[in-house]
Amino acid sequence: MSVLDAIAAKRDGRANTDAQLRLIANGAADGSIPDYQLSAWLMAVYINGLSEIETAQLTVAMAESGERIDLSGLDKPWMDKHSTGGIGDKTTLILLPLLAACGLTMVKMSGRGLGITGGTIDKLESVPGFRTNLSPEEMKSQASRIGIALTGQTPRLAPADGVLYSLRDTTGTVTCEPLIISSILSKKIAGGADHVVFDVKCGSGGFLNDKFQADVLRQGLIRVGKEAGLEVRAAITDMSQPLGRTAGNALEVKEAISVLRGEPGRVRDLCLHLASLALDSAGINADPAAVLESGAALAKAKEWFAAQGAELAVFDSDDWCLSDHTFKVTRQGEAGWVSKVCAEEIGKLVVRLGGGRRAKTDHVDPTVGVEIHVEVGDKVEPGDKLLTIHSAEEFDGQVSVEVSADPVERTPVILS
Amino acid sequence: MSVLDAIAAKRDGRANTDAQLRLIANGAADGSIPDYQLSAWLMAVYINGLSEIETAQLTVAMAESGERIDLSGLDKPWMDKHSTGGIGDKTTLILLPLLAACGLTMVKMSGRGLGITGGTIDKLESVPGFRTNLSPEEMKSQASRIGIALTGQTPRLAPADGVLYSLRDTTGTVTCEPLIISSILSKKIAGGADHVVFDVKCGSGGFLNDKFQADVLRQGLIRVGKEAGLEVRAAITDMSQPLGRTAGNALEVKEAISVLRGEPGRVRDLCLHLASLALDSAGINADPAAVLESGAALAKAKEWFAAQGAELAVFDSDDWCLSDHTFKVTRQGEAGWVSKVCAEEIGKLVVRLGGGRRAKTDHVDPTVGVEIHVEVGDKVEPGDKLLTIHSAEEFDGQVSVEVSADPVERTPVILS
Repeated sequence: MSVLDAIAAKRDGRANTDAQLRLIANGAADGSIPDYQLSAWLMAVYINGLSEIETAQLTVAMAESGERIDLSGLDKPWMDKHSTGGIGDKTTLILLPLLAACGLTMVKMSGRGLGITGGTIDKLESVPGFRTNLSPEEMKSQASRIGIALTGQTPRLAPADGVLYSLRDTTGTVTCEPLIISSILSKKIAGGADHVVFDVKCGSGGFLNDKFQADVLRQGLIRVGKEAGLEVRAAITDMSQPLGRTAGNALEVKEAISVLRGEPGRVRDLCLHLASLALDSAGINADPAAVLESGAALAKAKEWFAAQGAELAVFDSDDWCLSDHTFKVTRQGEAGWVSKVCAEEIGKLVVRLGGGRRAKTDHVDPTVGVEIHVEVGDKVEPGDKLLTIHSAEEFDGQVSVEVSADPVERTPVILS
Repeated sequence: MSVLDAIAAKRDGRANTDAQLRLIANGAADGSIPDYQLSAWLMAVYINGLSEIETAQLTVAMAESGERIDLSGLDKPWMDKHSTGGIGDKTTLILLPLLAACGLTMVKMSGRGLGITGGTIDKLESVPGFRTNLSPEEMKSQASRIGIALTGQTPRLAPADGVLYSLRDTTGTVTCEPLIISSILSKKIAGGADHVVFDVKCGSGGFLNDKFQADVLRQGLIRVGKEAGLEVRAAITDMSQPLGRTAGNALEVKEAISVLRGEPGRVRDLCLHLASLALDSAGINADPAAVLESGAALAKAKEWFAAQGAELAVFDSDDWCLSDHTFKVTRQGEAGWVSKVCAEEIGKLVVRLGGGRRAKTDHVDPTVGVEIHVEVGDKVEPGDKLLTIHSAEEFDGQVSVEVSADPVERTPVILS
């Protein structure tokens, strides 16, 4: 069996065998298959597709193409959580302690932000002292002790995905559902997950702008995940406006703590929904709202932050770690109802302020960001605050919040 | 415009623009487009195709991706000839002097053999002294003086084709009609041709084994050639048995000289047919059979060989340059009619004897080869000679010529 057979089969619209998919994944990981052969195969997959069974086999092969986190001996059930990424998405910071307080073991690898989408690692690194480079042994020992461990991604897990992902970026094969699904799931499996709850974002600030496509991705994640041995739950959630009232690294950590303290709103609603999906998947009978109210999730968050070396002042001080300059955007025209707070524009603004990356090597300023004081459907009067911009320098940009003369319906955060 | 746009258009089944095809060809030639992007595009082309207009645009772009032979000032009309390659195919050695003697100017680049298919350069290099590395200036001056010049291929002509061809070989994108056609035609155009006559071989010893596919290729060469500014004629000819009575480098040169001297048979028939196509294309009213009979083609061949530095003993001596050992294969069974002389098997035998290449760097022994004393349809009696094998060492292989008890119809050499 040769890589040329695998390429030819997919080129001609035939199925790849499990052995061929393993050859591709291992050859990508160890460099024995050159880039030009991998990209020919990727294009054939883009055009002719992979069945769900092939996608699951590729997923497992990629997961097994490098090291895997060995979670034997940890209290089961344990759970991973994944968001396709969006503006102001701080759910990981809330869900991990909430679900750990409900009795699950949460072991998670998170990424850094690139483009308009933030990353959990960048958010946590705005907290002085927070370590995001735990070793597999530290991860296991901490998760075993307190029920949570989170670290940055390592190229040693699912290395085939790293190679194929960067090739896809330069060969026009990014927007290919089986390749997206296998990329996401392979890292979850290599990270040792049994259960995963997915938050598929839909809207201008997310990966997909179309509800139908989001649903195709959700169904694919669930079915391929099952085929690959994972228990998957997935929600489609709104990303037409930013999630919650902040976008920016330190600001989002503060908002997450407020939600853990009981703050109502769309972030809390989303976290409780994702928590109920996770608990259902794990077969645990707990009421996440009650756990949140009890303060147990907040206490678990403090325990988690402390375990990873963070200063706990963030839980007490309100002015912690914000940039010097604030600029307020207020309603200039007539009274009306907010019709649009474009997530994509807010995301671009955060990058422009220095709070996100244009290139992988960019430095991120944790102190900048945007407070969003209104949501779609809110009534605003002349002079009302719409946004507060935290900037390291003088800010002279334009930010638009659209206001309608007629009442505007609120958008649910859970779309499906 | 970026290479990603070109890849995405072809990926999605849309046409590539002329500018995109030029970007691909130039980027392949100068190395500015990495292999993995070229191979993604090649696979998209393989699956989604190129129209005849796109193929012609790619052909011209590849032809213009490097140096071009400048034939201005040469007597027009002039002509190139191309065979898709077969066992025992020595037509170039006959057609060039024959057509030059008819008043055409023949300027040709030829290749070396690889696999079972021989190459004209290898054949000519069996003649002591024959130079196959003429500079463009030498080519032009010699063609202008005597009407013929032939040289080996240079990577400086149509360099995009060299890059794409070697990528196709390793990415499962060889058997793709628009890529085959543009590869062949781009080298003809870069070589300066106005007219080309093609010999599309069909049968086990040729590139295509199927008459329908051969006809698709012929039609494509004619239509795309026209679109790219070439006048093209093409024949489909039989390659189910070797062409003529020899296969092997020195043996084939000797056979070509015999045909120039007037020897009848399939080689002569094919050369006269291709010559009439070429003369028709060029609008020259000459009778190639009469020119052959007159000895003018033989005289032109001597002039050509001498001009390129060859010793002319080959035109006189019969035992010139053959290996020491000969092994005769004779009819062992009953009398009958030859039903099969497999061209592919004879080609493999020549490679085994050392007369062909398995890898590009292999040395070729010009002195070995096979004389084929029978054709399909010939009657053979017990003890009749079937083959004579010229080998550098003792030969202990098996070679089969199939014989039927019933009469077998002869196969025409011109199929269409």
